[in-house]
Amino acid sequence: MQLSTIYEPIQEDFVKVENKISSISQVSFSWLSELLDYCLSGGGKGIRPALTLLSGKFYNYDLNTLLPMATAVELLHVATLVHDDAIDKSSVRRSRPTLYKVWGEDKAVLLGDYLFAKAGELTATTQNLRVIKLFAQTLKTISTGELAQTFGAFNLEQTYEHYIQRISYKTAALFTLATESGGVLSEAPEESIKILNEYGYNLGIAFQIVDDILDFVGTEKELGKPIGSDLAQGTLTLPAMLLLERYPEDNPVKRLFQNGDKGENIKQAIELVNNSSITEECYRIASDYCAKAYRNLNLLPDNASRRALMELADYIVNRKR
Amino acid sequence: MQLSTIYEPIQEDFVKVENKISSISQVSFSWLSELLDYCLSGGGKGIRPALTLLSGKFYNYDLNTLLPMATAVELLHVATLVHDDAIDKSSVRRSRPTLYKVWGEDKAVLLGDYLFAKAGELTATTQNLRVIKLFAQTLKTISTGELAQTFGAFNLEQTYEHYIQRISYKTAALFTLATESGGVLSEAPEESIKILNEYGYNLGIAFQIVDDILDFVGTEKELGKPIGSDLAQGTLTLPAMLLLERYPEDNPVKRLFQNGDKGENIKQAIELVNNSSITEECYRIASDYCAKAYRNLNLLPDNASRRALMELADYIVNRKR
Repeated sequence: MQLSTIYEPIQEDFVKVENKISSISQVSFSWLSELLDYCLSGGGKGIRPALTLLSGKFYNYDLNTLLPMATAVELLHVATLVHDDAIDKSSVRRSRPTLYKVWGEDKAVLLGDYLFAKAGELTATTQNLRVIKLFAQTLKTISTGELAQTFGAFNLEQTYEHYIQRISYKTAALFTLATESGGVLSEAPEESIKILNEYGYNLGIAFQIVDDILDFVGTEKELGKPIGSDLAQGTLTLPAMLLLERYPEDNPVKRLFQNGDKGENIKQAIELVNNSSITEECYRIASDYCAKAYRNLNLLPDNASRRALMELADYIVNRKR
Repeated sequence: MQLSTIYEPIQEDFVKVENKISSISQVSFSWLSELLDYCLSGGGKGIRPALTLLSGKFYNYDLNTLLPMATAVELLHVATLVHDDAIDKSSVRRSRPTLYKVWGEDKAVLLGDYLFAKAGELTATTQNLRVIKLFAQTLKTISTGELAQTFGAFNLEQTYEHYIQRISYKTAALFTLATESGGVLSEAPEESIKILNEYGYNLGIAFQIVDDILDFVGTEKELGKPIGSDLAQGTLTLPAMLLLERYPEDNPVKRLFQNGDKGENIKQAIELVNNSSITEECYRIASDYCAKAYRNLNLLPDNASRRALMELADYIVNRKR
């Protein structure tokens, strides 16, 4: 199923989010405008702002607060990508040079800061103290998750539990912000907010597991960035963990993490994952999280948005980019 | 006059801010704790949080909101320093290696992000939407000012107006946040809030001009970092601008900006500034801003905090670090 079909219950307002995002680059300094325009026109999938709008559809849907919040959630996402690319020295994302690559590290760091601030400002316009606090806590959680990843780089001694915790911090936290804020701003009862929070968490974990699978089995053309980049950064993701388990002795991931020799080892690791049942097993785990997300939704009122959120869970497991 | 004497009207509560800052490094991940502890124990002068507390002393002083706000203001300051050092690849600050130097760029960027978030979270605990918005806008302004600086690097075509605008963004904005938030949180009348805002602005401009002078006439020992670092980064500050005006033909700043040859040119520029009336002229301009700050304060109720804010204006012009 296409994302545009899934987004149908919020189609009009999703366009408003896109317009609001575009309008952010209209600032008086031309150099700032150019940077903003570049990083905000990258053509993301818009899953996070869609989650906020859809999550707001169960009770008192109020676009006055949901529109800035959905925009803030997307900006926060873009800001973390801009910083990530600077940190990882990534050249390509979404099939074009990263802001880091074009303008350099200093601009990338400062523009990321600007976007965090802009996202915070938009969140503040909701005038809702609960989502304002949630927003700040989420940025704290994401930074902690990213730090955990850099501290754990090239470390073979990581458990499945470490992995889930790390991706819950660096990815699922933002999905949770997206869904929970939709619930809070639409004045959902506490029980429903909790459901939306849990749905966001499970969806986010599934999303990141699939991301980590695609880094092994995807194509550069579909992903818009080189595959094998997690291994190149020394990030031990689920497929790599399972690969280590299966071949505890002679293993390309082990060699790579121990001696830093990337080229051949990454190629071999990708081949081994593709020619084993590891991918399948990872997809099984991702699907389990999506199934949990599904079950969470069963407790919400049945409407078009609930169906869209369910379809989104399907989409996330089946996506190729 | 010593800072500790100036801080007397808020002495007890200033210690509480220091304790609150120390407590921020008490987190469950030991690696995060270590990073936080390192950058929060650097021994800053605490001018910004002192400004918040002192500015809160004219009407309804409420430590429940002023304490987290003062802490947030200091954290925001530290976060920008951590990012600046990563961007400028600075090795030394406050007489010890920078976080960037010890842990690398990736940690510095992410820890800065964490500190922004923590500062935002503390600001949110004030439950005051006005200061929450002001906080986000300030971070936006600071990032814009820092971006302006990197875009203007090694550019000789900058006017005095450009300079004042740039430092008002990158430095004075945070001073304004510090003073204005003190006013807002103590329920000061609008007129007094405006006065505190203007005082903060004028003080911040003076502070930065003195910073820029000290980069020419200070000593590494007093400053805790190498002198001449603005020129090394290609940042055209007030003393360098005046130097260009005085010696329009054969000029070390011009040579440096045109051919990038640092060593000898920086040395010559420092000598020329020290052996001319440029320093004096810069101090005169800084003093003018301080005098404006003084005049702003005359309109506030007379109390110990007003006298402290006046003394702070004196301190800022006479400081050696």
